[in-house]
Amino acid sequence: MNLYLAATYIRDARYGRNGQFETDDNSVRLYNLYNHWLPKGVAYFFILLLLALAIFEKPAVPGLEIEYYVTMPMEVICLIVIGSRLFHLRRFSPGKTFYSDKKNLVVMATMIVVVIDMISYIALVNSGQAMYAYRWSRPLRALLLVNITEGRQIRRAFRNIRRTLPDILNVLVLFFLSIALFALMALKIFERRPELRLYTDDSPYFKHYGDIYFQLYVLVTTANSPDIMMPAFDSNKWFSLFFIVYLVVCLYLFMSIILAVIYKNYRKHLKNEIKKSVFIKRFKLLRAFDELKEQVEGKSVVTEKTWNAVMKEVLPNRTHVYYSLLWMVLDKDVNGYIDKKMFLQVADLLNVEVSEVRNQKHLIEKYYPHIYNSSISIAVRQVVMHKFFRYFFDLAIVVNAFFIGFNLDEAEWFFLSVFTCEIILKLYTYGFREFCRRFWNIFDFIVISAAFIATVIEAALEELQYSRETLDVLLVLRILRLLKLVGSIDRFKIIIGTLTNIAPSMFTYGGVLFVFYYVFAIIGMEVWGTMLSGDPNVSFCNNSNLNGSEFARDHYCNNNFSDILTAFVLLFELMVVNQWHDILWYFFSAWARLYFVAFHLLVVIVVLNIFLAFILEAFMLESSLSTGKFSNAVEEKIKEMGMWVSKKPLQEQLPVEHVQIEAPQSVLVDNIEVHPSPTPPPAENETAEAADVVPEMKERRPRADTGLRFRIARRGTRKTEILLQRMFESELLHEEGQEMPTTENEIEEMEPEEIRPTPLTLDNVT
Amino acid sequence: MNLYLAATYIRDARYGRNGQFETDDNSVRLYNLYNHWLPKGVAYFFILLLLALAIFEKPAVPGLEIEYYVTMPMEVICLIVIGSRLFHLRRFSPGKTFYSDKKNLVVMATMIVVVIDMISYIALVNSGQAMYAYRWSRPLRALLLVNITEGRQIRRAFRNIRRTLPDILNVLVLFFLSIALFALMALKIFERRPELRLYTDDSPYFKHYGDIYFQLYVLVTTANSPDIMMPAFDSNKWFSLFFIVYLVVCLYLFMSIILAVIYKNYRKHLKNEIKKSVFIKRFKLLRAFDELKEQVEGKSVVTEKTWNAVMKEVLPNRTHVYYSLLWMVLDKDVNGYIDKKMFLQVADLLNVEVSEVRNQKHLIEKYYPHIYNSSISIAVRQVVMHKFFRYFFDLAIVVNAFFIGFNLDEAEWFFLSVFTCEIILKLYTYGFREFCRRFWNIFDFIVISAAFIATVIEAALEELQYSRETLDVLLVLRILRLLKLVGSIDRFKIIIGTLTNIAPSMFTYGGVLFVFYYVFAIIGMEVWGTMLSGDPNVSFCNNSNLNGSEFARDHYCNNNFSDILTAFVLLFELMVVNQWHDILWYFFSAWARLYFVAFHLLVVIVVLNIFLAFILEAFMLESSLSTGKFSNAVEEKIKEMGMWVSKKPLQEQLPVEHVQIEAPQSVLVDNIEVHPSPTPPPAENETAEAADVVPEMKERRPRADTGLRFRIARRGTRKTEILLQRMFESELLHEEGQEMPTTENEIEEMEPEEIRPTPLTLDNVT
Repeated sequence: MNLYLAATYIRDARYGRNGQFETDDNSVRLYNLYNHWLPKGVAYFFILLLLALAIFEKPAVPGLEIEYYVTMPMEVICLIVIGSRLFHLRRFSPGKTFYSDKKNLVVMATMIVVVIDMISYIALVNSGQAMYAYRWSRPLRALLLVNITEGRQIRRAFRNIRRTLPDILNVLVLFFLSIALFALMALKIFERRPELRLYTDDSPYFKHYGDIYFQLYVLVTTANSPDIMMPAFDSNKWFSLFFIVYLVVCLYLFMSIILAVIYKNYRKHLKNEIKKSVFIKRFKLLRAFDELKEQVEGKSVVTEKTWNAVMKEVLPNRTHVYYSLLWMVLDKDVNGYIDKKMFLQVADLLNVEVSEVRNQKHLIEKYYPHIYNSSISIAVRQVVMHKFFRYFFDLAIVVNAFFIGFNLDEAEWFFLSVFTCEIILKLYTYGFREFCRRFWNIFDFIVISAAFIATVIEAALEELQYSRETLDVLLVLRILRLLKLVGSIDRFKIIIGTLTNIAPSMFTYGGVLFVFYYVFAIIGMEVWGTMLSGDPNVSFCNNSNLNGSEFARDHYCNNNFSDILTAFVLLFELMVVNQWHDILWYFFSAWARLYFVAFHLLVVIVVLNIFLAFILEAFMLESSLSTGKFSNAVEEKIKEMGMWVSKKPLQEQLPVEHVQIEAPQSVLVDNIEVHPSPTPPPAENETAEAADVVPEMKERRPRADTGLRFRIARRGTRKTEILLQRMFESELLHEEGQEMPTTENEIEEMEPEEIRPTPLTLDNVT
Repeated sequence: MNLYLAATYIRDARYGRNGQFETDDNSVRLYNLYNHWLPKGVAYFFILLLLALAIFEKPAVPGLEIEYYVTMPMEVICLIVIGSRLFHLRRFSPGKTFYSDKKNLVVMATMIVVVIDMISYIALVNSGQAMYAYRWSRPLRALLLVNITEGRQIRRAFRNIRRTLPDILNVLVLFFLSIALFALMALKIFERRPELRLYTDDSPYFKHYGDIYFQLYVLVTTANSPDIMMPAFDSNKWFSLFFIVYLVVCLYLFMSIILAVIYKNYRKHLKNEIKKSVFIKRFKLLRAFDELKEQVEGKSVVTEKTWNAVMKEVLPNRTHVYYSLLWMVLDKDVNGYIDKKMFLQVADLLNVEVSEVRNQKHLIEKYYPHIYNSSISIAVRQVVMHKFFRYFFDLAIVVNAFFIGFNLDEAEWFFLSVFTCEIILKLYTYGFREFCRRFWNIFDFIVISAAFIATVIEAALEELQYSRETLDVLLVLRILRLLKLVGSIDRFKIIIGTLTNIAPSMFTYGGVLFVFYYVFAIIGMEVWGTMLSGDPNVSFCNNSNLNGSEFARDHYCNNNFSDILTAFVLLFELMVVNQWHDILWYFFSAWARLYFVAFHLLVVIVVLNIFLAFILEAFMLESSLSTGKFSNAVEEKIKEMGMWVSKKPLQEQLPVEHVQIEAPQSVLVDNIEVHPSPTPPPAENETAEAADVVPEMKERRPRADTGLRFRIARRGTRKTEILLQRMFESELLHEEGQEMPTTENEIEEMEPEEIRPTPLTLDNVT
């Protein structure tokens, strides 16, 4: 019975980690160190530093350029850190798994390539061949971000994209064939009409097949929407029919189908991923069970003694009372042991938030009870709890918005003090702890204090005639205060609530976009970095070819690849799609077209549509969960045993109006808005563990009835991923007979259940 | 026992009609006449004529203008026809239902308003006040299209939109609030910077709050994407952050949420609509059962004699053998009667296609058997059935595409004759009937014969130097032949198959769009119809205000409201969204902005997103149906009884290669691709009835084993609506206990099951 090892497995199950390690003590210890937040944080910091080097390397952000003999040592340090983390991983990984894991190989290969690139760059520069010296390995840096173990969520998103691609490919091929057909028609129709061979600005219209094809592709992005039609339309109105039919087919129909195909596949892969994390959880728990099991009455079970011992390893910061509480839930028939089936629910149980239930006394009440319970104080609290108190401040926000809009700055201090008063009064009435439990209170608090600080600084700076840039930032903070308005309308809270639920996953897609942006930005900088100058004093962007071009006319000179930040802005503009053919007018070579079509296909058509599919699924999930089908076995049990903080359904998430002022605290406990459960997503989440360890646990001995209660998050405030697990868990339970993958790698590489259509090959196309 | 009445109910159930009528003979006869295709067709014709009058009325399409004293009598005739159809409906409707039906009231009110408008117009014109004479009632004409009983599908789509609106409203209000907040920020940031007060073309940048607000709204449509950012970006690169955050929040996030909300609601309402049609079906069948029932052994049942009698009314063109066949399926325990439960399946049974199974002889085989069965003929057929035959012609299409692309017109006749040969050979081998069963064969046939005719005419016209417009049309027909290529690649067939499945519903959304377009176009024509001239010889579109504007620079003069066709093109451009602020530059009054924001919100944000939701759902449905969960009780029974045309799963929808040439016809029957079942959608569908009546039934007596078999459509070729009914039918069967709506109006007005959030009112917003 190896408690330390079992505790590691349980922790893995709880956080959904899928690490593989040798089971000797040393390896397990290394594994736990590997998962500690500090080495992880260090690794992340150095990867980000490596990526950030692009800001300082040539072509650098103006004013921040650092010579290569400074950046390269930094790069080497970053690589050493990443390499040592990889070495750390190697130390505890079982023999083959390290080298059979593609992501480790990718990281190692990338590091080798980067080193070769650095050496050849130094060699070229120092041998006087600086004009041939490119840092061509820089786009590969993004690979490190994706493939390092920490990039799990991003890697999952990439896997999703990779698996969706073959299915979209069919539609894309059909789409490109359609464009080809329409382009052929356009060629045939317009080549007979010499009067149609010119745009209105005398540039050639529909030059040749390739040009028509590209123009029609741009038309699908709607970027050249009426312009491309106008010459034909001016000559004969019926020509518009061609463009309308084209847009209906290629824009409205095909783009919808692409979204549909992506959505369909997204759901398929989502289910697979969730299944995978459930498998990981069970797999780890089974291993832990095998470590802890004893033979009682001929059955393999875990006894209470073992339980308490292993819990001390898993959660050293919790008290014995907490362990007993968990045991009470698990050992329902009070026979002193739990079997395998119950043990498999340990991870879910650990993820249920536990809090101390007790008549929490307000600090003021504690130290100055006669003041807090005086009639004036009660009256004040009564006023604060009244709904008109809220209405008054909602109105104040609206009035404030008008004052800001009409530049009536004199009232600024007045509003600020009004809102500060609101917060102080709420703090006084509800107490700090209750106040903080409500998301919108914290939101208000942050917004108002930011505005307060901003206004103070602004007042100070106005005296000093400080730079306007700083003032702008402060001003924005001040206006953000109006966001309070959103928080004061219930039905917006629901939308925002859903959004905050799915926010972590949204950041994942932000990460995916960042990877694509980084690669494309670096490539763009290397190829077209020096072509243009954004200097407004230079005419035609310092490029005489642009004389008379639309690019120069529209003053697009700053849309260039001169440094990585500008390149990111340019790529964002391309992602928004409008005017991209104008933005890129100045380098319409075949390669440039390829570059942008690739960017458009990958980012706009694939990634943004997957993001859209994600949002769609998240909203659909919300609605199917509101039917309450997916409640968890553990939660059911806790409710059965009456060991949970009962929460009457809150019609509104507002200060509880029906609370009698006579005993506000004791009743409040039953009516408080529930703090979203910090059940962490299966990925590593350090903060979650920290949040679980409620500090007062250590200080105060709970009372006889343990004083501990489980806090079950309301539907809608749960993490989406947890909900998804629930959704498919019932399905998984039915498939008990089915064999489970036995090694971690098998789980990681699990394919979606449905048989995918055979990929498009030359053989089955023809 | 009223057979005629019962037959009417059964027909209603079969076609999903929900008409209400008095049950006296005269009313039922009128009701059946009302549903006959001829009066329906006449009504449609006159409604379309009424709508088409906009082409001839001022401002008319150039050259087609007709004076009001000609169009008005036509309008009156149209109104009389529509009115008489309404009168017809009134004749057989039960007392209250006619006037309690909102759509009848809308039609009557519209007609009265139109008459008033006509009278006042004539009065104004004849009293010399022609400048005040507007035909302001014309946008209302679209209401007739929606509210006449024939516009059922469109009305359903409108109901869906109406019901979805309250739910989107929350998001839209939040969306507009966000823009307001961002606009306030922009105002605060940019008003301090006088150097930023000008666009690069010296027009004022971010003039005032209203202007900023509108500019930011346009930015959400991406139409002014980089331009609006460029002045700020040129001054300080960090300002781009403002626009990026804005676009991420308002474009990527909000637009995704709007789609998600629409999709969620679409599914909810879809389920409700389907439930409704199942209810209608059952309701009508129950009524028919009540008419036909007899008491046998104390149970209410329908006897075979009654069955045959009523079937003669329902399907007078079918033979007695067919009635017996249906009876065999229904009366499974052969006791001579069927009960209520079985009777409820009659509608489904009637919608299963029945065909005669027999060794169909090729015409040539029949009349010249020695030729058809000669060794040469068999060899030819063997060649045609070989897969290389197909490959050869696929290759020919690709080669042909290149020939067309490179203008090698000499080979035109060669390719045409090659493809004609292909069709003749296929016809010879498979026989006309088999040939026609396959969609892609018919497609080929049409495309090739069109191309053939086109080429012949072209050759003739080239001699005569005929107008190029005609040639263009013919040329397009010729190029369309390349679509054969799409049909020859299996995986594209699947996508196209799905598309053809959902095509009827897509046309519904086309109808919805048409209604919006019509209303907006007429309003636009009345207000801005004469402002611009598209004549290229007039500078600045005949409007000196446009001197130097972007509108004139881009030669957008033809984007105007001068007639209804141009207006439609303009609205299409607005729907595509790009450049709309430039297209509308010339009338940027507040009203114009309102007009376009309304159009954008209604058409782009609501209708197009609902269309997208429809496509998404159709694709998701395809995937959930491929699991085969939703097979119908009737189909199961037919299969059990072995009374169906067995179809081995066709790996490919190609000429069957594994058929032995010795007995091609008899085996072919088992392998033929199944003709999509013409089960009509619940809406009235006249052609479906016609299709069901297989002509040879009348000529030939089926043989002893009846010779009739049921043809069950393969999954994937079924109508989406039928599939949807299946999907929810199982759910409905579980709710047997639940009371059904008892009157037709109750069914029509059924609300979705889920409780919708209370609509947004002033009371709960504040």
